[in-house]
Amino acid sequence: MNLKDAARTIFSDAVKAADPFRCIQDVMTVEGDVIRIGTKHYPVGVYRKVYVVGGGKASARMGQAVEEILNDRITDGWINTKDGHAISLNHIHVHECSHPVPDSRGVYGTAKIVNMLSEADEHSLVICLLSGGGSALMPAPADGITLAQKQEVTKLLLAAGADIGELNTIRKHLSILKGGGMARLVFPARLHVLILSDVIGDKLDTIASGPAVCDTTRFSDCLEICRSYGIMDSIPESVRERFRKGVDGEIPETAKPNDTFLSFAENTLIGNNRLSVNAAQKSAIDMGFNTLVLSTFIEGEASETGTFFASIASEIQASGNPLDMPACIIGGGETTVTVRGKGKGGRNQEMALSASRYLDGMKDVVFLSGGTDGTDGPTDAAGGIVDGETVHIGKKKKLAVDDYLTNNDSYNYLKKTGNLLVTGPTGTNVMDIQLLLVGNPAL
Amino acid sequence: MNLKDAARTIFSDAVKAADPFRCIQDVMTVEGDVIRIGTKHYPVGVYRKVYVVGGGKASARMGQAVEEILNDRITDGWINTKDGHAISLNHIHVHECSHPVPDSRGVYGTAKIVNMLSEADEHSLVICLLSGGGSALMPAPADGITLAQKQEVTKLLLAAGADIGELNTIRKHLSILKGGGMARLVFPARLHVLILSDVIGDKLDTIASGPAVCDTTRFSDCLEICRSYGIMDSIPESVRERFRKGVDGEIPETAKPNDTFLSFAENTLIGNNRLSVNAAQKSAIDMGFNTLVLSTFIEGEASETGTFFASIASEIQASGNPLDMPACIIGGGETTVTVRGKGKGGRNQEMALSASRYLDGMKDVVFLSGGTDGTDGPTDAAGGIVDGETVHIGKKKKLAVDDYLTNNDSYNYLKKTGNLLVTGPTGTNVMDIQLLLVGNPAL
Repeated sequence: MNLKDAARTIFSDAVKAADPFRCIQDVMTVEGDVIRIGTKHYPVGVYRKVYVVGGGKASARMGQAVEEILNDRITDGWINTKDGHAISLNHIHVHECSHPVPDSRGVYGTAKIVNMLSEADEHSLVICLLSGGGSALMPAPADGITLAQKQEVTKLLLAAGADIGELNTIRKHLSILKGGGMARLVFPARLHVLILSDVIGDKLDTIASGPAVCDTTRFSDCLEICRSYGIMDSIPESVRERFRKGVDGEIPETAKPNDTFLSFAENTLIGNNRLSVNAAQKSAIDMGFNTLVLSTFIEGEASETGTFFASIASEIQASGNPLDMPACIIGGGETTVTVRGKGKGGRNQEMALSASRYLDGMKDVVFLSGGTDGTDGPTDAAGGIVDGETVHIGKKKKLAVDDYLTNNDSYNYLKKTGNLLVTGPTGTNVMDIQLLLVGNPAL
Repeated sequence: MNLKDAARTIFSDAVKAADPFRCIQDVMTVEGDVIRIGTKHYPVGVYRKVYVVGGGKASARMGQAVEEILNDRITDGWINTKDGHAISLNHIHVHECSHPVPDSRGVYGTAKIVNMLSEADEHSLVICLLSGGGSALMPAPADGITLAQKQEVTKLLLAAGADIGELNTIRKHLSILKGGGMARLVFPARLHVLILSDVIGDKLDTIASGPAVCDTTRFSDCLEICRSYGIMDSIPESVRERFRKGVDGEIPETAKPNDTFLSFAENTLIGNNRLSVNAAQKSAIDMGFNTLVLSTFIEGEASETGTFFASIASEIQASGNPLDMPACIIGGGETTVTVRGKGKGGRNQEMALSASRYLDGMKDVVFLSGGTDGTDGPTDAAGGIVDGETVHIGKKKKLAVDDYLTNNDSYNYLKKTGNLLVTGPTGTNVMDIQLLLVGNPAL
């Protein structure tokens, strides 16, 4: 068995498991005159109109699956997706817009969605398809606020040192859809949100800023945050005005637990990193590996995560801990890269390159880190796949691995040594997968 | 069961297992007229003189055990140890000197050892006791070289960007004892080196620079290194002269595999990080935990290692991977801290504080990281022990955990929140231990 091929196959099986098409088909069926989604049943006699909306990088592919299942039962549909991610559908309009920075096309498309949702009544079922990037791809500034003003507030908060929790508090209070807004808008129609998660921990209020879940923050928190960072006088007047109105009760709060409209909304997680990790485990077991899932919550600096995985490889060879050979250690999550250099790369490539330094000279060891979406950073690779030969090959080509790491130039090192993982776009997006193989099942 | 107490007990059991006294007694016995060390037997009729020498932070305690076993059989002995680590012995002189930067007391003590070894003949057994710090505590500059000159070369190499492998190549060629030098010196006496390892991977040529093992580097490498860093003209004339003589064969190379004197030398590893980790595992099993040894090779940035351990805690609670609760995940090794701030702390405290950020709010989770020597950085703590309450307690005291981390001030944060691990000096030194407890066996 070629260990690198084995790793590639396991990774491929992991990605396939999170294919949005497959995930939708797993939860949605039409049984006679009833549309079943997860544990919910929607009789078509009651829900005569079906709207399909959504936003995210994988949402067009999710829409494709819904069309295949519901077909003519779909009344109307609109999905915002990232440039280059559109699929032509029959009953759902797929609209491309900018990601990660939202643009006017995003605002236009989201306005179309908002209009469509306003048509929904008690005889309507609204299916919303969310995936990674959904928040940026469905920008719906609240009445009287422009996208530019929302972005200005964000910029001020970031510069002042606000954390992601504070940013989201503000964002939810400047949006029509976020913070349970979509559930409010759709009521009294039924809303069923199907979610392909690309965040660690799969928190529903974080994915696409929780359009159908309740929010624990208030307008008063927004004022407090702006005051504490001393930006109250710098934010646009329209934003300040909205916060004041909110505090005075002139405009409604984000969704709160007792809001009736929330009981008309359902959220179903159809896929996440763990789904892929579990598929990887099954695939590795089938090949004869002992397996261990370490975590699907891996975050932190990419290169350091690579170092940690390599330290496990050494231990497996030295003592059979945490697993006897042939071993496959599986991880998942989303790390970050503190950019200090000017090179080309991504978090998965940097992690793999960092691991290769410690695996240097080891036999029968492979480490792979890849993005399930098939793209890692601004490169055409999904990640990196390295072994005990990688640094040796680099040395023969006069490549100094430390220099490439310092320059965040993992792409070029891995390319020159033949260690890039290239899959092309996969259509899904459930963060990253790490695979550490130690020992060959065929030996 | 109080989980923090459980972690403290497991850590304490881990440390006890690596007590140098206990480790020595495990490998050395007197059986009738034969001294047995590991698998080797030394008849006292043949080896009529027994010399005990050594260097390292735990070497005095090792000497204490040897005295208890061999007693009057010891002819003479000298051990260099770190200031504050001396123990008064009857047959072995214990000499304190500076660590980590060697000083003239170290040179003096090592000269005493060298003199003693010169007396050893074919009827002598030399027992050498090495532990962490042994290299700095046994400085023996080669003929014609001073300690100051050795240090100057080291300084030049570091400034020029040389790596640890290159540094050690140079050091071994400027020393009487390193690179197999002690084995050469002792011959034709028998030499048995007993090693308490404080390095990842326990490589014998790295511990105290391998006084009784062969070396793969040559004088020609030394010239090449100095040339490649452009410091040939800056190093002291005496050093340049020695390298040239070495290349010309006027002085002998470091020990090479075929050297006869090496066959008269034996190295026995009596304790290492794995010994402690295994004891921790046994202790945790006795308390009812499911256990997993992750690695004894953990290196890299301390705070990132803490993040990684915390990611495993989340997964255990979410999915029962890599281990069902109650779980005890055990790690070991030696991480580093990239100092950016001006605070007080150590690698174990920083790791624990970093982990606490991710454990915030979690129930029944404890993370401990501690130095087995009982000291972590320039503090009176051995490390840190945190749980899901740590950050909450800090917030109530108006302490911003991120600020303390940025300032490398883990000691003060953990002290103010009552999360320091304090053991006092333990007498051993087998790097660090990490314990992650998730779930309470008593529930």
